[in-house]
Amino acid sequence: MSTPPGTLWLVPAPLDLGATEAPLDSVLPQAALARAASLQHWVVEDAKSARALLKRVGQLMPLAQPLQALQIVELPRPPKGGGRPAVPAIDWPALLAPALHGHDLGLLSEAGLPAVADPGSALVAAAHDAGIPVQPLSGPSSLMLALAASGLNGQSFAFVGYLPQDGPARAARIQALETLSRQQRQTQIAIETPYRNAALLQALVQVLQPATRLSVSCGLTLDGGFTHSAPVSAWRRAPRALPDKLPAVFCWLA
Amino acid sequence: MSTPPGTLWLVPAPLDLGATEAPLDSVLPQAALARAASLQHWVVEDAKSARALLKRVGQLMPLAQPLQALQIVELPRPPKGGGRPAVPAIDWPALLAPALHGHDLGLLSEAGLPAVADPGSALVAAAHDAGIPVQPLSGPSSLMLALAASGLNGQSFAFVGYLPQDGPARAARIQALETLSRQQRQTQIAIETPYRNAALLQALVQVLQPATRLSVSCGLTLDGGFTHSAPVSAWRRAPRALPDKLPAVFCWLA
Repeated sequence: MSTPPGTLWLVPAPLDLGATEAPLDSVLPQAALARAASLQHWVVEDAKSARALLKRVGQLMPLAQPLQALQIVELPRPPKGGGRPAVPAIDWPALLAPALHGHDLGLLSEAGLPAVADPGSALVAAAHDAGIPVQPLSGPSSLMLALAASGLNGQSFAFVGYLPQDGPARAARIQALETLSRQQRQTQIAIETPYRNAALLQALVQVLQPATRLSVSCGLTLDGGFTHSAPVSAWRRAPRALPDKLPAVFCWLA
Repeated sequence: MSTPPGTLWLVPAPLDLGATEAPLDSVLPQAALARAASLQHWVVEDAKSARALLKRVGQLMPLAQPLQALQIVELPRPPKGGGRPAVPAIDWPALLAPALHGHDLGLLSEAGLPAVADPGSALVAAAHDAGIPVQPLSGPSSLMLALAASGLNGQSFAFVGYLPQDGPARAARIQALETLSRQQRQTQIAIETPYRNAALLQALVQVLQPATRLSVSCGLTLDGGFTHSAPVSAWRRAPRALPDKLPAVFCWLA
């Protein structure tokens, strides 16, 4: 390779996917917006939402290339629910080709930081293996905003992804994570598909011990977003409804 | 209480503490800067660095009050190294008094998001207990930037804080966390005081299995910041030095 490789930029996205759009610069710093506007080559979770976001960026500052001229390639989607992704062999060097040829390349997911609770980590690993520098850009992480707002232990925590959908399996998992939380004094963080928010909340309130503290953040960074954090006993006394169209983050500490 | 309470705003800080200052708007969104400029009442990790940061904010937009007129109170410091903080009884309502009297209140740590790998969570919990709304503002999280840039599993991860300083205890802890990482396919994330960066890296490279993937991020969001991610076997073949004055984040996945 004669030219030095380009950089793989990890570009944050706002958290308003599927909600009322918030101003981009309310959640993204200028440097992330400027970098996004400068990139011609992209690997993204979803091409349609990536184009919509870049259109919004273009309303704040000129894009280096017109939207139609950008090269936008979609990442193969790993299955949700954790576990080893059963993705067929992927030609990572092909996805990284622009960077291997000296161009900067952007990685973008639908919301928040790419490769955190979102696809993209395999591409980042492949970039490291290929000697491509990787630079993350500051942006919103719903998990960390929820953790900060929970008032729970921020010195030790685990993100466990999605819990099982099956009732008994979900209850068993919640109990196991509560025991771990108590033993390690470790905050547990989980997410759910929005239309199952209410079901997960109900399961947590039923299964967790009364003194365990449970925090739910909904609509983070959005108008009307809230974090409600209280012992499970208080959640039982005063049940709360959750929106079924907004992402929520659930944190608990036994 | 006749007046409704103010809001506790969790205000992010840049990651350049002790390093060459980066432009604030390269890492903080306008909304966080504007909110910081608007607040008169603060609870902070360190008053001196809080004043320095608010002075920088004031260079970008006018502060609602002159710096000298701001009410800035320091948080009691919990001990580093994890475990239950052995802090004497703290009068949280006194710290929250401005919010209880209807004023908005800012919580600020020295770097990144308050209450994440930083003090502040007990104040946030006390705010929830007192019925004070808590709103986190988007900003940089060094842990999540490092995780995203590592290429390791971002669907399941744990932040374990600081490891023991004693050699044998540290090695045992690294091995235990590696076993956990393998069993749960969970990325482990740790931090260290900068002057011990080299010692922690050496221990990780010695103790972890050759196939375990180790990623070190240093100077995140700063000029010259880098993430190096490779199997431990490659770290052994080509040892790397780490700066001893910049914070680093260590991630590994067995």
